[in-house]
Amino acid sequence: MSLIVQKFGGTSVADVECLRNVAKIVTNAKKNGNKVVVVVSAQGETTDDLEKKAFEINEKPSKREMDVLLSSGEQISVSLLAMAIERLGFSVISLTGWQAGFKTEPNHCNARIKKIDTSRLEHEMDLNKIVIVAGFQGIDQFGDITTLGRGGSDTSAVALAAALNADLCQIYTDVDGIYTADPNLVKNAIKLDSISFDEMLELTTLGAQVLHSRSVEMAKRYNVNLEVLSSFENIPGTKIKEKISMEKLLVRGITKDDDTSRIALLNVPNRPGFAYQIFSLMGKYDVNVDVILQSIGRGEAKDVSFTVPTSQMKLAVEVLEKNTDAIGTDKIQVTDSISKVSIVGAGMHTNPGVAAKMFEALYDAEINIQMISTSDIKISVLIDQKYSDRALNALHEAFFE
Amino acid sequence: MSLIVQKFGGTSVADVECLRNVAKIVTNAKKNGNKVVVVVSAQGETTDDLEKKAFEINEKPSKREMDVLLSSGEQISVSLLAMAIERLGFSVISLTGWQAGFKTEPNHCNARIKKIDTSRLEHEMDLNKIVIVAGFQGIDQFGDITTLGRGGSDTSAVALAAALNADLCQIYTDVDGIYTADPNLVKNAIKLDSISFDEMLELTTLGAQVLHSRSVEMAKRYNVNLEVLSSFENIPGTKIKEKISMEKLLVRGITKDDDTSRIALLNVPNRPGFAYQIFSLMGKYDVNVDVILQSIGRGEAKDVSFTVPTSQMKLAVEVLEKNTDAIGTDKIQVTDSISKVSIVGAGMHTNPGVAAKMFEALYDAEINIQMISTSDIKISVLIDQKYSDRALNALHEAFFE
Repeated sequence: MSLIVQKFGGTSVADVECLRNVAKIVTNAKKNGNKVVVVVSAQGETTDDLEKKAFEINEKPSKREMDVLLSSGEQISVSLLAMAIERLGFSVISLTGWQAGFKTEPNHCNARIKKIDTSRLEHEMDLNKIVIVAGFQGIDQFGDITTLGRGGSDTSAVALAAALNADLCQIYTDVDGIYTADPNLVKNAIKLDSISFDEMLELTTLGAQVLHSRSVEMAKRYNVNLEVLSSFENIPGTKIKEKISMEKLLVRGITKDDDTSRIALLNVPNRPGFAYQIFSLMGKYDVNVDVILQSIGRGEAKDVSFTVPTSQMKLAVEVLEKNTDAIGTDKIQVTDSISKVSIVGAGMHTNPGVAAKMFEALYDAEINIQMISTSDIKISVLIDQKYSDRALNALHEAFFE
Repeated sequence: MSLIVQKFGGTSVADVECLRNVAKIVTNAKKNGNKVVVVVSAQGETTDDLEKKAFEINEKPSKREMDVLLSSGEQISVSLLAMAIERLGFSVISLTGWQAGFKTEPNHCNARIKKIDTSRLEHEMDLNKIVIVAGFQGIDQFGDITTLGRGGSDTSAVALAAALNADLCQIYTDVDGIYTADPNLVKNAIKLDSISFDEMLELTTLGAQVLHSRSVEMAKRYNVNLEVLSSFENIPGTKIKEKISMEKLLVRGITKDDDTSRIALLNVPNRPGFAYQIFSLMGKYDVNVDVILQSIGRGEAKDVSFTVPTSQMKLAVEVLEKNTDAIGTDKIQVTDSISKVSIVGAGMHTNPGVAAKMFEALYDAEINIQMISTSDIKISVLIDQKYSDRALNALHEAFFE
């Protein structure tokens, strides 16, 4: 008998028909002799609707009250799913985050899980029940409801799979797996049978929206076998695990991130410590700096460019403009029409030809590279946003077709 | 400094405007130097909407899961009200039923409160916070969410006022007090300044929908000063307390209940024990028998009539028809177009003229009385339902105008 944790996102439980479908998937796993624990997000747009309600009442509601409000969304979906499963004649029980033993830190709206007290949950499994757990939420040491932040239900599922030592954690979603590129943008994109945690991490942080990066980090740390699969089609998905059998493909996926702006500081004085000054300022205001490029100093001045999410660009520029003395320049240039296009694959660091092949493909497609950033398992280039789809397809053709 | 418990029903917190209005009432009470605890129902039609969702999924959902689902309604309203109060610059915290310490029996959907552990709540009051509590809900000894049944938020408020030894429990609603008759039916109905618990109990059980009878019983048992008042108009309401100052009015209110059916059993054998047989059968099937009339036995047979809520009439008749041997007759007559019209007042039992006056008024209005039932503080008559409004007005005129 295996223990499987299944997680269903908001679109998978959006309405009566979806809930009935999920009930079928869950009870099939039970019928096949498995112990089944199910983690559920709030239905469809519920969380957004509740947030909207809150902001109509108060432009700056406290995060504590926001957590009380938002956590009701999963309380609704777990009870409705339990009812759908009861209807099929199975023994089932729903548990809220606090009932399921999710203890978190007290930082509301973005709480980290400290531990999961699984005693209640294991008791219910011993009674042969399917257990439905509200994702995204927990309770802090003061007895207050907390939420884990957007995408937190994935993290709930993986944490639960780790705590229960589950054999498999299945993330059901509205896509049927991880592809070599976004199938909406690259028509020949290929579904991967499997992918390593590290590759998946690069893909999630680089703009593939399938899995929350926190959940992949946690799966890697606790070595939880993940599978991403569709709740709407009964076909195998993509397995994500520590080691994948054969690294046939040097490159596993190609992604783009259009939410990128570039800030360039010109004529920064060429003295030690200025980079530190700039980026500690950004850190102080929680600006997420990504790619950094520093020109080689010529004489007294140099140029420093870096990218930030476009949503944080305004804040970053404000901070810089207030601190022109500290950073030594007031020449700030901003471009918000930048894309970051990346190729990801655990095999590439042993194969220097990959970078050359990437740059050649972009050159052939007449796309100018503005900045380059590399890690062990990825190469990212910044290009003009209007060419990002063309770049994706050119790279996909070069590496996969 | 007084401690006030304020309760707001679903219509009082239905939308943003309503919530802002309630926030004003609550913070005014706080500004006036009181400690304020607020009990809130789910917004508007939320509970009905959630129930509808449940029945779409499963025609017979378990009561446990229904409680998980329904309790989310108050979780939404308490957090939204807290946000509205935060916006006015007051220190406030919302608590769910389990956070506020409501321990109940485990019978889901109709749980009774066992005790309230007020430690968290008093701690928050000591921090000078306004405390918003989710009505209608609690937690049982298994850690499961329970609800108190419809109208349970009134009971939550009164129980909390008793547990906190509050000076006053204000029930805010969409009417501005208790009237001598339903103002929608009797245009000259007069608002009462005060009324006793017993009188209020007769009025609630006789069809005046303002207060849940369980909450009045509890207020009487723990001697909680109640006030019913409007959340939409800033005027005094009706006080409900143990003793009211002067019993100027013999009659305090006139009510009608159209949800009444009469069942008549003809030719019941005139032997001891048959009444017991009939009504123990009704009790076994949870049929609520109200007025009972038994003809004086002539010879071998007698007639027995009694009333039940129209919603239970079909069940009652089915039970009787299955047991014609035990009850000794198969002559069962049913009328569902009956109204029970009652006059209520603590002073009437010392004044025999009241009954005569009531019957005279009905005679003058040419309304035939089918059955009569009396208690210390009320007289009820059963009449043809089509005359119930005319009876209400005739009686109101006789006693109040």
